[in-house]
Amino acid sequence: MCGIVGVFDTSTAAQMTALGLHALQHRGQEAAGVAASDGATLRYRKGSGLVKDVLVPSVLEPLKGTLAVGHCRYPTVGGTAENNAQPLYATCRGEPIAIVHNGDLVGASLLRDDLEMRGAIFSTTSDTEVILHLIAKSSAPTLIERVADALLAVRGAYSLLILSRDTIIAARDPHGFRPLVLGEVDGATVFASESCAIDFLGGKVVREIEPGEVVSVSPTGMVSRKPFPAAETHACVFEHIYFARPDSTMFGESVYQARFQWGKELADVAPVPADIVISVPDSGNPAALGYAAGSGIPFGHGLIRSHYGGRTFLASEQAKRDLGVRLKLSPVKAVVTGKRVVVVDDSVVRGTTSKKILRLLRNAGASEVHLRVGAPPVVSPCRYGVATRTYDELLAHRMTLEESRVWMDADSLAYLPLGSVARPGFCSACFSGNYPLI
Amino acid sequence: MCGIVGVFDTSTAAQMTALGLHALQHRGQEAAGVAASDGATLRYRKGSGLVKDVLVPSVLEPLKGTLAVGHCRYPTVGGTAENNAQPLYATCRGEPIAIVHNGDLVGASLLRDDLEMRGAIFSTTSDTEVILHLIAKSSAPTLIERVADALLAVRGAYSLLILSRDTIIAARDPHGFRPLVLGEVDGATVFASESCAIDFLGGKVVREIEPGEVVSVSPTGMVSRKPFPAAETHACVFEHIYFARPDSTMFGESVYQARFQWGKELADVAPVPADIVISVPDSGNPAALGYAAGSGIPFGHGLIRSHYGGRTFLASEQAKRDLGVRLKLSPVKAVVTGKRVVVVDDSVVRGTTSKKILRLLRNAGASEVHLRVGAPPVVSPCRYGVATRTYDELLAHRMTLEESRVWMDADSLAYLPLGSVARPGFCSACFSGNYPLI
Amino acid sequence: MCGIVGVFDTSTAAQMTALGLHALQHRGQEAAGVAASDGATLRYRKGSGLVKDVLVPSVLEPLKGTLAVGHCRYPTVGGTAENNAQPLYATCRGEPIAIVHNGDLVGASLLRDDLEMRGAIFSTTSDTEVILHLIAKSSAPTLIERVADALLAVRGAYSLLILSRDTIIAARDPHGFRPLVLGEVDGATVFASESCAIDFLGGKVVREIEPGEVVSVSPTGMVSRKPFPAAETHACVFEHIYFARPDSTMFGESVYQARFQWGKELADVAPVPADIVISVPDSGNPAALGYAAGSGIPFGHGLIRSHYGGRTFLASEQAKRDLGVRLKLSPVKAVVTGKRVVVVDDSVVRGTTSKKILRLLRNAGASEVHLRVGAPPVVSPCRYGVATRTYDELLAHRMTLEESRVWMDADSLAYLPLGSVARPGFCSACFSGNYPLI
Amino acid sequence: MCGIVGVFDTSTAAQMTALGLHALQHRGQEAAGVAASDGATLRYRKGSGLVKDVLVPSVLEPLKGTLAVGHCRYPTVGGTAENNAQPLYATCRGEPIAIVHNGDLVGASLLRDDLEMRGAIFSTTSDTEVILHLIAKSSAPTLIERVADALLAVRGAYSLLILSRDTIIAARDPHGFRPLVLGEVDGATVFASESCAIDFLGGKVVREIEPGEVVSVSPTGMVSRKPFPAAETHACVFEHIYFARPDSTMFGESVYQARFQWGKELADVAPVPADIVISVPDSGNPAALGYAAGSGIPFGHGLIRSHYGGRTFLASEQAKRDLGVRLKLSPVKAVVTGKRVVVVDDSVVRGTTSKKILRLLRNAGASEVHLRVGAPPVVSPCRYGVATRTYDELLAHRMTLEESRVWMDADSLAYLPLGSVARPGFCSACFSGNYPLI
Repeated sequence: MCGIVGVFDTSTAAQMTALGLHALQHRGQEAAGVAASDGATLRYRKGSGLVKDVLVPSVLEPLKGTLAVGHCRYPTVGGTAENNAQPLYATCRGEPIAIVHNGDLVGASLLRDDLEMRGAIFSTTSDTEVILHLIAKSSAPTLIERVADALLAVRGAYSLLILSRDTIIAARDPHGFRPLVLGEVDGATVFASESCAIDFLGGKVVREIEPGEVVSVSPTGMVSRKPFPAAETHACVFEHIYFARPDSTMFGESVYQARFQWGKELADVAPVPADIVISVPDSGNPAALGYAAGSGIPFGHGLIRSHYGGRTFLASEQAKRDLGVRLKLSPVKAVVTGKRVVVVDDSVVRGTTSKKILRLLRNAGASEVHLRVGAPPVVSPCRYGVATRTYDELLAHRMTLEESRVWMDADSLAYLPLGSVARPGFCSACFSGNYPLI
Repeated sequence: MCGIVGVFDTSTAAQMTALGLHALQHRGQEAAGVAASDGATLRYRKGSGLVKDVLVPSVLEPLKGTLAVGHCRYPTVGGTAENNAQPLYATCRGEPIAIVHNGDLVGASLLRDDLEMRGAIFSTTSDTEVILHLIAKSSAPTLIERVADALLAVRGAYSLLILSRDTIIAARDPHGFRPLVLGEVDGATVFASESCAIDFLGGKVVREIEPGEVVSVSPTGMVSRKPFPAAETHACVFEHIYFARPDSTMFGESVYQARFQWGKELADVAPVPADIVISVPDSGNPAALGYAAGSGIPFGHGLIRSHYGGRTFLASEQAKRDLGVRLKLSPVKAVVTGKRVVVVDDSVVRGTTSKKILRLLRNAGASEVHLRVGAPPVVSPCRYGVATRTYDELLAHRMTLEESRVWMDADSLAYLPLGSVARPGFCSACFSGNYPLI
Repeated sequence: MCGIVGVFDTSTAAQMTALGLHALQHRGQEAAGVAASDGATLRYRKGSGLVKDVLVPSVLEPLKGTLAVGHCRYPTVGGTAENNAQPLYATCRGEPIAIVHNGDLVGASLLRDDLEMRGAIFSTTSDTEVILHLIAKSSAPTLIERVADALLAVRGAYSLLILSRDTIIAARDPHGFRPLVLGEVDGATVFASESCAIDFLGGKVVREIEPGEVVSVSPTGMVSRKPFPAAETHACVFEHIYFARPDSTMFGESVYQARFQWGKELADVAPVPADIVISVPDSGNPAALGYAAGSGIPFGHGLIRSHYGGRTFLASEQAKRDLGVRLKLSPVKAVVTGKRVVVVDDSVVRGTTSKKILRLLRNAGASEVHLRVGAPPVVSPCRYGVATRTYDELLAHRMTLEESRVWMDADSLAYLPLGSVARPGFCSACFSGNYPLI
Repeated sequence: MCGIVGVFDTSTAAQMTALGLHALQHRGQEAAGVAASDGATLRYRKGSGLVKDVLVPSVLEPLKGTLAVGHCRYPTVGGTAENNAQPLYATCRGEPIAIVHNGDLVGASLLRDDLEMRGAIFSTTSDTEVILHLIAKSSAPTLIERVADALLAVRGAYSLLILSRDTIIAARDPHGFRPLVLGEVDGATVFASESCAIDFLGGKVVREIEPGEVVSVSPTGMVSRKPFPAAETHACVFEHIYFARPDSTMFGESVYQARFQWGKELADVAPVPADIVISVPDSGNPAALGYAAGSGIPFGHGLIRSHYGGRTFLASEQAKRDLGVRLKLSPVKAVVTGKRVVVVDDSVVRGTTSKKILRLLRNAGASEVHLRVGAPPVVSPCRYGVATRTYDELLAHRMTLEESRVWMDADSLAYLPLGSVARPGFCSACFSGNYPLI
């Protein structure tokens, strides 16, 4: 998963882009980068690490110009390419462009092989570079047409932004897997993966870019096109469940509200007699409040989250294992000791953290621990941009519900029913195994 | 305010001390340091910054030995001395000692002047160095007696730990202003400012060091003395209200529970018709839940807190001002828009952040904003170790309640009554102006 | 100018490459990089700065494998592309390759335009990327043939190394502008820009790669080809005069010996009555000793060079100007005060440093200062890889000899005659303006 | 050994002090620090590392004021105290002072024990802190008198500078072991260990501070006192031989000239038939030129010194051993191959580097290698401030001349006779074992 931001027409385009990325930091902490144009020259900087550590003032300062795009990248498991950080930069027919991309293409390796056989060279292992080559291959007269040509040749999940000397082009795939929002900040046009970035910049959201829409903003104004044939929408439900920030509105819905509502449904379908409902902070908060509201059991802050990080300052893996989840979460005995505790998390993927949290709560004196999960069991890897694990790592693929409960030593364990999230217009392949696009 | 930790009799004393300080990071983020003894030599390291940044493995590695003490320091306003980080190290009569100290002495400058007139030299501006000189002046035969001699000569607030080649001495002033806890972790003896550090290390709390108690732990065992005349206890109530971590138990009470209870009392004495109760996370959480419980109004997470810091990556003060409190807190529109909102904070000192939060909520569409504060108005600076502001900076010293409400543009504003916190055995001078020791 | 190194068949290929680059650090201080192959995967790292700062152990550690190539890059004036550091990496027809390059192509921008019109994308502004595209365009069956195809399509100066999964290919242009040496270190095959790198690694030089030679070393052995038509050799004489390290042997000659000999010739053609001959250390040393030997005037160390750098620790440009050349060089009064001083430098380009040195010597009490230059006047920019200045910056282009003497306030000024360096087989375009290749 | 600088009466006192220390960097690379006064407040900064790395602009910026002192510290073998960097800072009777010190006291540990028994505390293991305590103990009315009182109580080697709010006091011990120079830079008064620092700052040397002289400079002018009884001078001859920079004038003599002269004497007393004289750069340069002048054998640059450091970028001790002295020095084959080589070094202490250099030269093809040393054999450790090695480490203590020659595989080996350096007014204890002060 990744976050992308584009800013058009303000004297501090690179700085505003970096701030927007900071608000999207939850979408990717591995690398960050910004490219900016002053009308003549594109310049870019990127590096490994958090936005605040990579895009410091001295790094942004040379990125002159009034338009910019940026990217923050999610850690990917494995992989040997060192330079998959974005933006990717290239000159195509003498025109410098930079591209940032959220999503995964389907069948990208075939396209890549075909391009290589025709003499193209690739300097990354990223799908995004395929799009760059396809843009360069097109002989259409304008950039927006070349971008459309390129996107007609690919399939899969993408929300992307392309920067040229004087234009930003924003595009969202016909199925609308990944989000992309259009906003306005002090007269500047801003594109961002989530509405929370627009809010953070003090602006207002105009609308979402529609599935299959390609928008171009340049000195001559904003143009919208729909170059693709009609297609079914498959918005990613995992964005609502886990990925997006709770203060974002996405695919027309409040993320907070969706999670709260699912928590409430969970209370209806998986009730349990208990004294207190607590959340795994912070992502489990809305579902936990929903569960408390639905069940009538009081909510308490039974786990507090450390603000100071700290894994990295430990010398040995042993020390990290010994301290385990305590480095991040501390139980509040006053809330849990001697109590029957319902702990609510947003989702469970591998289950290892959940297991540790339950043990932490038992050690702190909880008399019973009941895990409630604000999502269905994750049974299949995502093919559209969420770097979920392989089948072998997915708890719900490896064990039955009862086996999972025993393994993590919960007094009871319940997930949200698949029916609650498998709605028309949404992709729930990770919960159902039904991939809408192969 | 500061945090202190001491560890006796484990092969990783310095590392365990650093971990304990990490758990006390909320008590001081300006500087951190550790001193350790291998039975023959004392070594120490200290520096500016967070525990995880200062006490990295390569820094701790040379701090060999089985006993250690450490300190994390709160930012102090003003001051020109560069080296007030602790531990302070000195050789006294050929014996190396290191000292860490939480608290402020009363009348320290007079003692200092007197010592200087007798030829003593001071290399810091800290009260703690006075104690070090007094220990060196004593001709008592044992270190614990010399420490007792020194402490009999001073007045004020202190919880302190002293490391010699083979002994750790822990002391708490006769009035018990500051906390100090004794625990056990895997057979090692651990002293810490708060019980949460013992929990974090996976150990168990044995008891609090008592007001006026001096404890020594060495290869010959643990010895406790009470060298001071009987005195009234004045435990700091602000620890419960703001400073301590909610998962600590302090002065015999759960910090979380105390805050929750005050929030409930606040609902009784300052009710208001509203749709939702939200907290200023994370310190306002328990009081907000208490207010919700007391009032029957539902609790929601209306403000989310950023995990990624970020002030420092902004180039200009202007950018910091423009972004204001948004860098730290983001309103959740789904929770507050169109609602009558009660926002609960743990305490209000200068009021500037509260004012910004209220504006943030109004901009996010709250129809009414009511501020409820889980503490009485702060009217006087602390003289016993909390680096509160001067009179001129204290909102409640500068304005009446109604003036404050108008200035921060709240629909209503209410504090906890003084009576709720002014209990026997506690110091509430910051709320009352009645200083128990001058 | 740049330095390149390749190492084949040793378990520490990346480390040995980095060490070789360290010995070639004088050829380029702006950036450094290494690519290595473990037979299956190519990995690379590069960054701005000195070899010792960029290629630290933790950076090299992941570069597994038994073959590697590396590059150190000379600071180039101007330019906006951020990523011209080498190696350049690409996959061509599914095969990953990395390339390092010393030299400049002639007419590269035309080739580039042509490639872009056919849909190629460029991610750098470097000539080297043109070669990469040409390799990818070739449909020849083996890599060495594809490389030969590519090089037949370009003209100009290049010594280059190409790394694939199991092969290193070394090539030198038909005119032999830039050096490239083949050596052996503990059984491993090593290519390097200069022999001093082989010496530094404790190995022995086998021979120079010949102009127009393409050598391939792989598990099946070493193969040499000469794919180019016969051409005249134009070895760069400025390598001998300034660029190469004095302990290197290059184009069949000792660099030290060449400089010493030119200093001696200079004494013959430009004698002056004087008390002492001094050098501008360290590059002027051999010519100064030659001048002393030729003239019979004693040699002294009249200027000492600082080992501690330091420009960067000065806050202001003003401070740097005030301290001027003193930051790098200090006059020894015992050697120069009251003396008629001949100061010998290897070459003069802009003349600004020479002017400052002469003033330094006068201020230290020299009674006369005579500048002797171990090279002819530089009158034309290099087009083959030495980043010399533009015409406007060249002292000898802007002023006559006498004007130069007056401007720099020398009692006398003399250069080596053009005839001493304009030998067959060598390029001396920077001194003559006669470019052998346009 | 250490370097000290003081600057009085200029608006950039701290910056000028740091620049002066940069010029004295050869006297100590372990740590650096500066203290400055603005008339009311003393502020200081110090840290481990080179002047240019520790005293960067952002560190110096807060050191406001018109007077300052600074120190660079030589690496000391062993020792556990972490904070021996200088300046030392203390308040004595309410007056803040900072002190910097070059030299070692005799009998300091007795003084220290005595002070500790009277209740003094020490926070370093440095002799300098003893002086600080003695100043604080004095009840004399003025600082200069208190300093004189303190210095009358100690014996040994010291050149020191003391900074108070408005005064700098400079003192040199009665025997004048260590140098101290008075100069003027743009109207400011400057004290420095060597004249090269004054030259570097663009000023002029006024005179040396005399043995036993205490000079005070304050707003009321400069005052000189001689509080000590008459004593014999014992200026350190090792400063001339090795420690001082060749462009300094010290104890009335040019360092360069002294070394050159000794080289010439060495040619007279230890001639050898040879083809070339080379030096171990840079410290052996003057003696080598002297040897060449005395013997009539030509001088060549047979070893070149790397400007790029690099030990620290090697991962393993093994790599460092394998590369050995090549990391620092490279032989020039054109100068040494097939030649009978005389290599001249300034002094030999442990002999390990000399041995490696001789092997390097043999491997480069020298037919004979003759080592000539511009100093007598070092047979005794220094007690007056040069951190020479223990007896066991001194080559000339462990082996006879012939044993040394065989061990280092030299064709011949000769030292300067003791008589050449054992002059009246100089200490040559390291060469003779006759300590003038015990």
